[in-house]
Amino acid sequence: MKTLDDAFRHTLKDVYYAEKALTKALPKMASAVSNRALKSAIEEHLEETKGQVKTLERVFKSIGEKASGEKCDAIEGLIKESEGVIEEADGAVALNAGVIAAAQAVEHYEISRYGSLREWAKVLGHDEAHELLSGILDEEKAANNKLTNLAVSTINKAA
Amino acid sequence: MKTLDDAFRHTLKDVYYAEKALTKALPKMASAVSNRALKSAIEEHLEETKGQVKTLERVFKSIGEKASGEKCDAIEGLIKESEGVIEEADGAVALNAGVIAAAQAVEHYEISRYGSLREWAKVLGHDEAHELLSGILDEEKAANNKLTNLAVSTINKAA
Repeated sequence: MKTLDDAFRHTLKDVYYAEKALTKALPKMASAVSNRALKSAIEEHLEETKGQVKTLERVFKSIGEKASGEKCDAIEGLIKESEGVIEEADGAVALNAGVIAAAQAVEHYEISRYGSLREWAKVLGHDEAHELLSGILDEEKAANNKLTNLAVSTINKAA
Repeated sequence: MKTLDDAFRHTLKDVYYAEKALTKALPKMASAVSNRALKSAIEEHLEETKGQVKTLERVFKSIGEKASGEKCDAIEGLIKESEGVIEEADGAVALNAGVIAAAQAVEHYEISRYGSLREWAKVLGHDEAHELLSGILDEEKAANNKLTNLAVSTINKAA
């Protein structure tokens, strides 16, 4: 990893791995929680995540690279943390609050990653990649805002 | 972990562990990078982080609990990722860009954690904790903005 383009391609593989890992982790989170609105928010984000995997494949194509993932330690840790919450929570109150917080930590991780990636794409002149990555970034921000509103308006109040 | 208060205390131990881990990880990041402004931004945030450890001890005290950490898988993964960047980068360009992005991923993680914690503190009526945690949240947001400006204005342009 020598140039900014190397860093870009490396991090792209990283988020591709992360999104694919999330398509497996999100169903577990959705089935663990009891709050209906939270369950459906997670399920909706699962569908969005599947779409993001496809969008990332278009990003790879636009820079002439085959889509491939590379193990991402950060998402592994974040997912492990969410699994810990599910295991340790005893009852709906702590579970719903803990899972929504864990999901927000994942969103924030993604927001930081797509923020860097789309900025690098711009500097590197990867215009199509810049546009596609900006689209994903907007989706992640919207997903996080939705979770914040849900936490503040419902989940935490019920506790 | 049954009540929201349990989730709050558990997550507080989590971030206490995370901040302490960062006081060991940030010096490695600072010494790895060559860009002076980035190096000094990381060093400044190290001092801020040491202050946050002390502030968290005041939060523990305010809720009648002894300050203690609990292993946080997410920060372990995020730190491991930053170490991977330092190892794999061959030259200043990829290194500076990769480290600043990794530092921002850490900031975003903390922003999500303190966002949940201070909201929970409010709901739970832990007023002093709410105020102290809001203060840390503001510091983390400012640190992230500083890194973003540095990335956009200098690091990425130099690449």
